[in-house]
Amino acid sequence: MLNFDMHIPTRIIFGKDTHKEIGALLKPHAKKVLLHYVGKSIKKSGLYDAVIASLKASNLDFIELGGVVPNPRLSLVQEGIELCKKEGIDLILAVGGGSVIDSAKAIAMGIFYEGDVWEIYEQGKTISAALPVATILTIPAAGSESSSSTVITNEEKQMKLGYGSNHLRPLLSVMNPELFFTLPSNQIANGVADMMSHIFERFFTNTLQTDLTDGLCETTLRTIMKNALLVSADSQNYDAWCQVGFGGTVAHNDLLGLGRDQDWACHGMEHELSAIYDVAHGAGLAVLTPAWMRYVYKSNINMFVQFAVNVMGVQGSYRDPDAIVLEGIARLGEFFKKMGLPATLLELGIDESQLELMAKKATGEAYGSEQPIGGLKKLYWQDVLEIYKLAR
Amino acid sequence: MLNFDMHIPTRIIFGKDTHKEIGALLKPHAKKVLLHYVGKSIKKSGLYDAVIASLKASNLDFIELGGVVPNPRLSLVQEGIELCKKEGIDLILAVGGGSVIDSAKAIAMGIFYEGDVWEIYEQGKTISAALPVATILTIPAAGSESSSSTVITNEEKQMKLGYGSNHLRPLLSVMNPELFFTLPSNQIANGVADMMSHIFERFFTNTLQTDLTDGLCETTLRTIMKNALLVSADSQNYDAWCQVGFGGTVAHNDLLGLGRDQDWACHGMEHELSAIYDVAHGAGLAVLTPAWMRYVYKSNINMFVQFAVNVMGVQGSYRDPDAIVLEGIARLGEFFKKMGLPATLLELGIDESQLELMAKKATGEAYGSEQPIGGLKKLYWQDVLEIYKLAR
Repeated sequence: MLNFDMHIPTRIIFGKDTHKEIGALLKPHAKKVLLHYVGKSIKKSGLYDAVIASLKASNLDFIELGGVVPNPRLSLVQEGIELCKKEGIDLILAVGGGSVIDSAKAIAMGIFYEGDVWEIYEQGKTISAALPVATILTIPAAGSESSSSTVITNEEKQMKLGYGSNHLRPLLSVMNPELFFTLPSNQIANGVADMMSHIFERFFTNTLQTDLTDGLCETTLRTIMKNALLVSADSQNYDAWCQVGFGGTVAHNDLLGLGRDQDWACHGMEHELSAIYDVAHGAGLAVLTPAWMRYVYKSNINMFVQFAVNVMGVQGSYRDPDAIVLEGIARLGEFFKKMGLPATLLELGIDESQLELMAKKATGEAYGSEQPIGGLKKLYWQDVLEIYKLAR
Repeated sequence: MLNFDMHIPTRIIFGKDTHKEIGALLKPHAKKVLLHYVGKSIKKSGLYDAVIASLKASNLDFIELGGVVPNPRLSLVQEGIELCKKEGIDLILAVGGGSVIDSAKAIAMGIFYEGDVWEIYEQGKTISAALPVATILTIPAAGSESSSSTVITNEEKQMKLGYGSNHLRPLLSVMNPELFFTLPSNQIANGVADMMSHIFERFFTNTLQTDLTDGLCETTLRTIMKNALLVSADSQNYDAWCQVGFGGTVAHNDLLGLGRDQDWACHGMEHELSAIYDVAHGAGLAVLTPAWMRYVYKSNINMFVQFAVNVMGVQGSYRDPDAIVLEGIARLGEFFKKMGLPATLLELGIDESQLELMAKKATGEAYGSEQPIGGLKKLYWQDVLEIYKLAR
C-alpha cells in the first residue's frame, strides 16, 4: 500500500425533503449566491421553485445563470466568471448533475485566476483559491458533488479536459434521491456507467496489499449494479436510488483509491469521443471499458481474476484464468446491455474516420509530446487506437 | 434507509515517515501547541524526539502535558484546561492512542466551557466550540483520530461517559503504521476488538434497504480480522498494519453507520466494566459481544444470519437459521481467542458481586431514571444483567 493524504471535507445532507433546507444550509456561508443550472428540467419538476422559495425564506440574495449543457462549455464558464465578479457573488449553488457542478467549479476558480480559466485546464496551473460551491444533485453519475475534479469542454478547440484541486471540493451537497425519480432511462444508465468507471479507474492497479480499498471497491460496485437494475426497472424505487446515489458519491470522493496507483485510461480515451462527437460520457465509457479490459488484462491477470470473481461473481477453474477473466468481462458487457447502454462505437454514431486522431489526442501525440496514459498498463497512441478498434 | 448528514472533515496523512511532517502540517494552524501524551513509550521509541524535532524545525512554540492513563481521567483533563488557558494554547497535539486523543478532546472543549467539563459528559450539554486537535496515532483501536467522540472516566464517581460533537473531529491525524510495530500483543488484540465493535454497533440494525453500508461494514470487518491475525503473528508486518490501522479509522468515522439505526448496547455495557474494574475497553468488548449476540439474535435473526454468512463465512442450510447464527457467533469467539482475548468476565477478574449494580448503571436505573439501551433490541437492566451472566 502507498502513502496517502485524504481530505474529504464536503458535507453531505442526504434524504427525503433535504433540498428544502438549502436556504438555511447556505445562510451561514453566503450573502449573495449564483444559482447555476440547466433550465427546463428543474423548472418542470418544481425543484426550481422549491430552491427559490428556500433561498428567499432565508433572506439570501441571489442571481441566476442557466443554460448549462452536457459536456459543459467553456464559453458559459467565462460568462459566469464575469457575472460573478460584477455582482459580488460569494457562493455558487449548482442545481443539477455533474455538468452543472463542473461548470460551477470552473467559475469558482476562474474568479480568482488572472488569465483565461482554460489555461488552468490546459497548462495544469496550481490554484490557490476558489469560491465555495454548494450543490443539489439531480443526476447521480459524475461524483462531482464531493470530488475535487471538474471537466470542461472547449468547444472551439474540440478539447475536453479535466482538472483537480482540493479547493474545488464542494462545501456541502444535498442529495434527495426523490429528485432522481424523473430521470429518463438513458441518463440513469449513463450515470451508472460513469460511477462504475470511477471505481474501475481506482480498482485496477498494480499496487499490492490493498485489502481494505479492494473490498470497498468491490462491494460498492456490486451494490451499484444490483440497485441500478432496480431503478432501471422502476425509476421511483427510493431505496434502490439511495444505494445508487450515495454509491456514486463514494465512488468518486477518493476514499476507494487511497494508497493505490490508479489507472484512468478509460476516462482519457472517452474524453476524446465526447470532445469530437459530444456523446454522453457514461455511454462512451460503457463502450470503451470492456474493450480496454480485453486489451490490457494479460498484463495483470490476477487483478482481473479478482474483478471477475469478487465483482462479477464468476466461479470456475482458476487453472484457466483467461476463461474466468473473459467471463467476467462478458458479464460486465451483459450488465451494460441490460441497462440499455451501447456496446460499440458504431452504436454511438462514431465511425473510423477520427480514431487515429482521437488516439493521438488522448496521449498528447497530436500536440507534439506523447505521454502514455493508464496506470495498470501504459498505453501509447497505437495501443489506444487498438482499443478503439476493439470497441468498433 | 434513513436520512443522514455526513461531515468528516478530518484530514488523514497516512504512511511511512509521515509523523516527521507534523511541524509543517501544524504550522498554518497554530502558534502555541500543547503536546499531550502518556510518557514512557513514546520516549523509548524515539517518537517523542522526532515530534519535538519537527515542531522545532517549524519554529512552533509548545508546552507538554504527559501522564495520560488508559480510561483517561477527568483530573488530568481539568489540569490540562487550566494549563491551556494560562499558556494561551491554540492547538492540542495528541500523540498516542484513543485515551490521549479523548483526553485532548476533553481539554479542547473544556477551555470554552464555563463550568466543570464533566457537566458536558454528564448532562449532555451542547458545545459550540473547541480548540483544534491534531493527532499522531500510536495505537489503532478507538478511531478517535477522526471521530466526533470522546470518553472520559471520572475516577471519583467511578463513571465512564462518552460525548460526541462534530466540533471534536480532529483537524488532522497522522498515521504511520510503523509506529505500531512495538505494540504488545494484548494492546493489538484490544484495539482490534474495539474497532470491530465500532462496526458491529453500526452494522446490527433493524433498518432495511442498507446495501451499501452493509457491504462497507462487512468488507471492513473481514479485512480487519484477516490482517489482525497477521499483525498478531508478526507485529512488524507493515502492509497488514496498513489495513488494520486504516480499517480502525473507517470503522469509527461514521461512514459505515450512515442512514441506519445503530445499536451501541455493548459499548454501554462495557463502559460499566471499565469504570469499576479499569479493564481494557477492547477486552471487555470481546467478552460481552458474543454474549450480547446470543441474547438478542432471535429478535432479528435475519440480521444475524447476514453477519454469520457475509462476515464469518458460515455456509449451511438456511432452513436452520439458528444453527447458522450460532456458528457465526462461535467463529467470532474463536477469532477473539486466537487473538489472545479473554472470553469470560472471570478472565477479566470480574466476579458476580457488582453485576446488578453495573446493569443498573448501564441503563440509568441506578440514577433513578432508566433508559433502555440498544437500537436492535431495547435492553433494560434485567436484560443487561442476563447478558453479564451469560458472559461469566
